Amino acid sequence: MEWDHVFADRVTQLPESDMGLILKVAGMKDVITFAGGLPPANAFPVEDIKRAASDVLTENAPAALQYGAAAGYQPLREIIAGRMKTRGVKASADHVLITCGSQQGLAFLAHMFINPGDIVMIEEPGYIGGIQAFVSYGAQFVGIPMDDQGMRMDILEAKIKELHQNGKYPKFIYTVPTFQNPTSITMSLKRREALINISKKYNILIIEDNAYGELRYDGEELPLLKALDDEERVIHLGSFSKILAPGMRTAWTVAHKDLIARMVDIRQNLDLGPNIFAQTIIAQYCDMGLLESHVQESKTIYKPKRDAMMHAIKEYFPVEVKVNYPRGGFFTWAELPQGMDTGAMFDEVLKEKVAYLPGADFYTSSNVKNTMRLCYSNSTLEQIEEGIKRLGTAIKKQMDK
Amino acid sequence: MEWDHVFADRVTQLPESDMGLILKVAGMKDVITFAGGLPPANAFPVEDIKRAASDVLTENAPAALQYGAAAGYQPLREIIAGRMKTRGVKASADHVLITCGSQQGLAFLAHMFINPGDIVMIEEPGYIGGIQAFVSYGAQFVGIPMDDQGMRMDILEAKIKELHQNGKYPKFIYTVPTFQNPTSITMSLKRREALINISKKYNILIIEDNAYGELRYDGEELPLLKALDDEERVIHLGSFSKILAPGMRTAWTVAHKDLIARMVDIRQNLDLGPNIFAQTIIAQYCDMGLLESHVQESKTIYKPKRDAMMHAIKEYFPVEVKVNYPRGGFFTWAELPQGMDTGAMFDEVLKEKVAYLPGADFYTSSNVKNTMRLCYSNSTLEQIEEGIKRLGTAIKKQMDK
Repeated sequence: MEWDHVFADRVTQLPESDMGLILKVAGMKDVITFAGGLPPANAFPVEDIKRAASDVLTENAPAALQYGAAAGYQPLREIIAGRMKTRGVKASADHVLITCGSQQGLAFLAHMFINPGDIVMIEEPGYIGGIQAFVSYGAQFVGIPMDDQGMRMDILEAKIKELHQNGKYPKFIYTVPTFQNPTSITMSLKRREALINISKKYNILIIEDNAYGELRYDGEELPLLKALDDEERVIHLGSFSKILAPGMRTAWTVAHKDLIARMVDIRQNLDLGPNIFAQTIIAQYCDMGLLESHVQESKTIYKPKRDAMMHAIKEYFPVEVKVNYPRGGFFTWAELPQGMDTGAMFDEVLKEKVAYLPGADFYTSSNVKNTMRLCYSNSTLEQIEEGIKRLGTAIKKQMDK
Repeated sequence: MEWDHVFADRVTQLPESDMGLILKVAGMKDVITFAGGLPPANAFPVEDIKRAASDVLTENAPAALQYGAAAGYQPLREIIAGRMKTRGVKASADHVLITCGSQQGLAFLAHMFINPGDIVMIEEPGYIGGIQAFVSYGAQFVGIPMDDQGMRMDILEAKIKELHQNGKYPKFIYTVPTFQNPTSITMSLKRREALINISKKYNILIIEDNAYGELRYDGEELPLLKALDDEERVIHLGSFSKILAPGMRTAWTVAHKDLIARMVDIRQNLDLGPNIFAQTIIAQYCDMGLLESHVQESKTIYKPKRDAMMHAIKEYFPVEVKVNYPRGGFFTWAELPQGMDTGAMFDEVLKEKVAYLPGADFYTSSNVKNTMRLCYSNSTLEQIEEGIKRLGTAIKKQMDK
């Protein structure tokens, strides 16, 4: 049977995922890869999860194994609301939706908001998972450049005005304000305040994706956009993937309760509800008082890796390569000299037994080819030193061409 | 902030879910409810799941807690392919996609196939979860009536011809051929063969939803549509929800490997992948050789409930009510005399402390109001006897009006 006639229009528009490349190099012997943003196995609190799982199956099995509410397991919604409150966000369980990773939250938001052709404003470069969720529903993008303070608010406002003059109204502004994926840049407080003001002035929603925000290794803690949001225009996404275990596929969306209620209706039709078993175990783990200390311990795993990578970059990279200094999260971002193409040189660099993620796919509105994302989270200190050394050598070779 | 301007067109078309009613009555004291199709807590093999979870976290924690493949956990895909083979289906792991319940499989299929306005052919009455997944993407329906042999193939073919004459090409035929939801009717072998022939003749896909098919209490086992499908036109959905535990939210889609590959690309953007933790535990549970005997044990839980309900119906229902005899699954289906309205009388019947699911929402193409679905799966034998007695009395009262 020929399939082409049966597909929906939205399917033919899908861009390639980078996951293929990430998995390919992850399976290669002797290759040190900085491509994928995985936590390392030693960051998982296995014994505590085991205890939580055993407790749940002893005390709460009928709930853990049964169908559950489409919004998520109520005690876990309450735990998440409580954590949001400690971060200055007014939230109750009614403001929380549990999803299968933040990616599902992004897809539900796309399902809820995006008609084909609708405009989404996004950092340039922007998070590829967000781009792909929105493209899956036919979104078009207006990319907003960043500097070391994050998204440029002057350009954002000018672009919104320009769109309005053409009768176009962007659906929302999507941002990863803290340890942004892929650049690792954190939006300054001044910019955060300016962004909230723009959202009010132009009546536009903000989606704040905070996948890495809890993993700060140094520098001052900044308020969440959601904490600055006094008119409930911010939709906030957080996740247990980076602070507990991605295999649990459990994340949260926090928003105005009317929006959450609509999302619950939508998700009811898309998967009935999130994994109850994983939710009850995470709730138990949190009730045992283990999460906050585990987040602190995780930082002691990642900070030395960040330090090792930045130190190695200083030692081995040509001075012409501009590298961001990440104050948290899993990766940094490198800009090679103009004219270089990290996609084209990938296979040749791979011969040196080192891999990175080419940056081109993170750009929605410009054709930039000389960038790369470098994840340190899943490599040992020795691998980081050796891998960056190999990469520095390979980049020099490419520059000499 | 006013929200209405931000929603996508597809959101405004959503029908109400029946889940609200099901949950409402489930929470009412003293009410015996036959509304929701839940397994009872004693159908969950808690101790074995506990052992499987403990084994996984002892031996396989790094995989169970890490990101996993978008297609699903490879050993579980292989287990499912193996089970399909024992049912006469040629399948390897490449033909299997793991989803968060069958509902997510239906939604992914809708995402892959349905443009707004596309036509889906469905049994009349048809499964509401399927209807809602497809409506979420703007599907329109052509309902095909059933008799005691299942979907009427003469009418199906006539409707397809009629559509073709109008230049319309239905995207697929959606069917629950075994213990159909909501009617409990099983499609005969002759009809199954006719359906496969129609799918070839008119070059149209079939979606076979087999949520209950493994729970047969008597009568002859019939081949899956997928087992009769020599041109890979059938997309088959199965689930662990009814044979193990719905809280695990783990199900499968089996189809041509090119279609599965496309679905994997699509789902990568919608939730990255299914719950790894639950998948590894189910795979371990299966590897321990426990699943097949558990399915057999489950039948010994449900069969007496089916018998109790059918016996009580014979004793307490007015003879004017036509009730299907279910040879498997969780429920039966009752047709009250013409002119009665099970939706309108619901609240009055509820005063007798008994609840059912009104049938009207299962119809896509006709306005039928005198039907109801009655689930026996989650009630005790005593509750079934007493509940059907109350319902019989209430129906008689309504008929007397």
